[in-house]
Amino acid sequence: MTGAASTAPLLHAIIPAGGAGTRLWPLSRRRRPKFLLDLTGSGRSLLQGTVARLAPLAASTTVVTGTAHADAVAQQLPDLPPENLLAEPAPRDSMAAIGLAAAVIARRHGREAIVGSFAADHLVADETAFQDAVRQAAALAAEGWLVTIGIEATGPSTAFGYIRAGQPLGVPGAPDGRRVLGFTEKPDAATAAQYLATGDYRWNAGMFVVRAGILLDHLAANKPQLAAGIDEIAAAWDTPDREAVTAAVWPGLEAIAIDHAIAEPVAAAGGVATVPGAMGWDDVGGFATLAELVAPCATGPAAGAAVLGEADVEAVDAPGALVISTTGRKVVLLGMPDAVVVDTPDALLVTTPERAQDVKGVVDRLKAAGEDSLL
Amino acid sequence: MTGAASTAPLLHAIIPAGGAGTRLWPLSRRRRPKFLLDLTGSGRSLLQGTVARLAPLAASTTVVTGTAHADAVAQQLPDLPPENLLAEPAPRDSMAAIGLAAAVIARRHGREAIVGSFAADHLVADETAFQDAVRQAAALAAEGWLVTIGIEATGPSTAFGYIRAGQPLGVPGAPDGRRVLGFTEKPDAATAAQYLATGDYRWNAGMFVVRAGILLDHLAANKPQLAAGIDEIAAAWDTPDREAVTAAVWPGLEAIAIDHAIAEPVAAAGGVATVPGAMGWDDVGGFATLAELVAPCATGPAAGAAVLGEADVEAVDAPGALVISTTGRKVVLLGMPDAVVVDTPDALLVTTPERAQDVKGVVDRLKAAGEDSLL
Repeated sequence: MTGAASTAPLLHAIIPAGGAGTRLWPLSRRRRPKFLLDLTGSGRSLLQGTVARLAPLAASTTVVTGTAHADAVAQQLPDLPPENLLAEPAPRDSMAAIGLAAAVIARRHGREAIVGSFAADHLVADETAFQDAVRQAAALAAEGWLVTIGIEATGPSTAFGYIRAGQPLGVPGAPDGRRVLGFTEKPDAATAAQYLATGDYRWNAGMFVVRAGILLDHLAANKPQLAAGIDEIAAAWDTPDREAVTAAVWPGLEAIAIDHAIAEPVAAAGGVATVPGAMGWDDVGGFATLAELVAPCATGPAAGAAVLGEADVEAVDAPGALVISTTGRKVVLLGMPDAVVVDTPDALLVTTPERAQDVKGVVDRLKAAGEDSLL
Repeated sequence: MTGAASTAPLLHAIIPAGGAGTRLWPLSRRRRPKFLLDLTGSGRSLLQGTVARLAPLAASTTVVTGTAHADAVAQQLPDLPPENLLAEPAPRDSMAAIGLAAAVIARRHGREAIVGSFAADHLVADETAFQDAVRQAAALAAEGWLVTIGIEATGPSTAFGYIRAGQPLGVPGAPDGRRVLGFTEKPDAATAAQYLATGDYRWNAGMFVVRAGILLDHLAANKPQLAAGIDEIAAAWDTPDREAVTAAVWPGLEAIAIDHAIAEPVAAAGGVATVPGAMGWDDVGGFATLAELVAPCATGPAAGAAVLGEADVEAVDAPGALVISTTGRKVVLLGMPDAVVVDTPDALLVTTPERAQDVKGVVDRLKAAGEDSLL
């Protein structure tokens, strides 16, 4: 049944839109986080791409973001109903965000409703493969599983956690579904290579598909206080008390990732399934990734270099270089193969793909120095 | 007598201030040419440095520049008498510029007055050695020689023409003075190495010292029409007719370098002398030179990199890098040894010392494309 197109919506989409993306500084900032950026020159932001990718599958879309970004999210998503934009007064990590969205959806659409959570700041190249994987995940979710989509690794990355798959489950509509034996933290390179050699490990992209009621039950079983707080807010959400109750309850919620709160204990109890996805997924973790993702200019003065943004670029002997500019300035590279140049009105970064991850240290130093205007 | 200090002025200084310095784009521009820039972080422009270097030696200082730069020159040199700022309505190369200045000086101070011409956009590290060389040159000039100061080569440069020295002249006060056998164009590297092996060749820095009347006589003998035009303007210079006569005569003057107009023919006739100078001279021909001239930061966030201008630089693993900024932006280099980054409000250059000369081609392409605002 895999690949069979269905016209019925599969799930209610939940899109947690958080994370500054400090490894993309100075392009990404606190006020202009990664998910609001167009990182591929596609004409839409990662958030807009995520919503568009889910649109054919989703009966509804709910975005959870910080209050600081709620206006920007609403601007980028004019078709999103205001009541489906959940603004967190303060960050409380992914369990509170996804849990609240699931609880609101359960009250609106029933506990049997299937929800799927997908981060707002990832890229997926192959949307058909993505939809196939989600379709299988929904079939498993309908049977009561907490399902995570495991990304087929393209190499022994040390940047991601891994999902370890066990025996096939034989659920109709989910021929590739397997039980999850466990989750791992980000491994070292040797361990990652061992993982891949077994054929049983996939990257954990944080994509969860599950019935809303099942998710809330797992939450109540593992984190009863957090579940109670979320339920209190969800009960008030579609009433005039939303703001007051949220303001009173949200700050006291435990900040914990969904992985630790429920995925790991439920996996240990045998309740998590996974389906694989070879969908050209990328979390765009830094400029090195971006340099690979953005196609170089084939002709013109920037031929050979990849260009994002408004830059007027001349690249001479700079194959593989990546130039990102938000200033519209003339940018000239002479003899700079593989250079990474990120040009913004108040900050300029010049680095290499190998060193681009170190920009996190720069951001840490800016924070320590109180240079808030640059963050 | 070499090195003996004299309190009497040696000469009337002529400073031709021309040349855009396209190899220093985007720092240097048509409206902000090299000689107006502070290229060493000394707090003064190359022009100001040239005037200051000559001040202890000069009875007067005359600057010849284009009308477009006359105001900027006057601003940088508030002590320069307005009548000593000669503005060329259009560029006519160095012979017209230096010839007019010499003719005006001859009328004001007599034909016996010694003039010395020194470009406005060069650097001299050892001012004592410079003054010694000028003192010897003035002693030779007083005897009727057209004297050029030859720079002791620090390597077989292909960027400069060379002066070939002949037998010593034995003139009192000029123990190092030698006859000039000829001038060469910029050689290839092998030829340059052969030159240096003889011990008789020095770099031609275009520094000439000569009695004003002798220079004008050489000009009249070799370029009578040009000499007549210059004389006509000089006769009107300190009268109310200056502007009208200059406007009428200047555009018709032959555009020719002093080297071709008189230095070469007079050398062929045995009338040119040279004195050597080991004065840490540099014409700052591009960013590669600048990267060597500007001392790297010893401490702080930019340690190891050389920084010019207003940049707030963090340099991580970027030894030998040169960062020049006129924007005041944060500039971060991560793993970019020896990179050259030139950051201006409307243009950004990222290159290496090896490729920095190619910026001339960029400027040529900007010209061809009519991007005048960037020139």
